[in-house]
Amino acid sequence: MDKFEEKTITRQEIYNGKVIQVVVDDVSLPNGQRAKRELVFHQGAVGIIAVTPENKLVLVKQYRKAIEQSILEIPAGKIEKDEPNALVTAMRELEEETHYRCESMNFITKFVSSPGFSNEWLYLYEAVGLYKISTAEALPQDDDEFLELIELSLEEAKARVDSGEICDAKTQYAILYLEMQSK
Amino acid sequence: MDKFEEKTITRQEIYNGKVIQVVVDDVSLPNGQRAKRELVFHQGAVGIIAVTPENKLVLVKQYRKAIEQSILEIPAGKIEKDEPNALVTAMRELEEETHYRCESMNFITKFVSSPGFSNEWLYLYEAVGLYKISTAEALPQDDDEFLELIELSLEEAKARVDSGEICDAKTQYAILYLEMQSK
Repeated sequence: MDKFEEKTITRQEIYNGKVIQVVVDDVSLPNGQRAKRELVFHQGAVGIIAVTPENKLVLVKQYRKAIEQSILEIPAGKIEKDEPNALVTAMRELEEETHYRCESMNFITKFVSSPGFSNEWLYLYEAVGLYKISTAEALPQDDDEFLELIELSLEEAKARVDSGEICDAKTQYAILYLEMQSK
Repeated sequence: MDKFEEKTITRQEIYNGKVIQVVVDDVSLPNGQRAKRELVFHQGAVGIIAVTPENKLVLVKQYRKAIEQSILEIPAGKIEKDEPNALVTAMRELEEETHYRCESMNFITKFVSSPGFSNEWLYLYEAVGLYKISTAEALPQDDDEFLELIELSLEEAKARVDSGEICDAKTQYAILYLEMQSK
C-alpha cells in the first residue's frame, strides 16, 4: 500500500476530446482532509532519436499551437488507440514524419512529461540503421500536420538549444543523451 | 512571420481551474483548412537540482494522482501568480520541500514539458552551496502536499531510474545532467 495514496471520492469529467480527457477529482488526503486534483489524461506518446549515416540528428520543425511558435523536435507522435505498443508507434511516426526507416529500435527510457497534472508517458527510442525511403513509398503524414525536416550535427543541435529553437523536454533529453554517448 | 502558423478562428474555454485552463481552438492551417487544437494552459513550474555537501542528490517522494502512484522527483513546484520570476519560485520550493537553502541558483535550461497540448514551461536550476535550516525556520509546506525527503548518490539515483521509481522528465534530465558533469 502506498502511504501517501490519495483516494478518489468523486470524479467529474470536464472534457473528453480527441487528444486529451480532463477530469477533476475530489480526493481524500493521508490526513483525512479533502483536496481537488485537476487531471489531464493522454494516451501517451513516443519520441525517436534518429541519427543518419552522415551522423546528423533528424529533427522536424512544426508549429505548436499551445506555445504559438514553430519549434524543432525529434520525430514524435501520439500512441493511437489501435496500436499494440509504443514500438509500433515509433516505427510509424519515424516513417510518416521523416521518410526514414530503421533496422532496429532500441528503447532508451520512458518518462511522465508533467506528473503534477498529466498521465502522459513519453517512450523514447533510438533508431538504429537508418535508411531513406521514397516519398511515394512512405506512410502519408497526418493531414493536419505541416512539417519541415532538418538534419543537424550534435554541435549544431546544441546551438539550437542555446538559441531557444529546441525547447521541448524530449528533444533536450535526446541531445544530452547523444552528448553523453559521445564522451 | 511563421510560415506554419495556425491562426485562431475561435477559442472555446472548457475549464478554468486552480492549476490548469483548458481551451479548444478552431484554427486555420497553412493550406487554408480547419483543425481543432485541444490546449492546456499552465503557469509554468521549476525543478531544482540540489546536491548536498555529502554529494547526495536531494529528492522528494510524493503521490501523483494523475498516475496513481508515489514517485521520486527533484524538488519542484508551480510558479505562483504573484511571483516575479522562476528563480524566486525555485528558492521558495527548495526551502518549503526540503528545508535546504542555497548560496546561489544556476539556471540550467528551460523546456516545454509537452508541446503537443500544453504551454507548461519547466525552468531547471542547480542549487549551489546547499545548507540545512531548521524546520521551525523553514517556509511551511503546502497543506495538501505530503512529502518524504530522500537523498541518494548518483549511482543510487540511476538505479531508481532503472527500477521505474524515478520516472518523470525533469528528474531523469537532472540525473543525466549530473552524470554528464561527472565525466
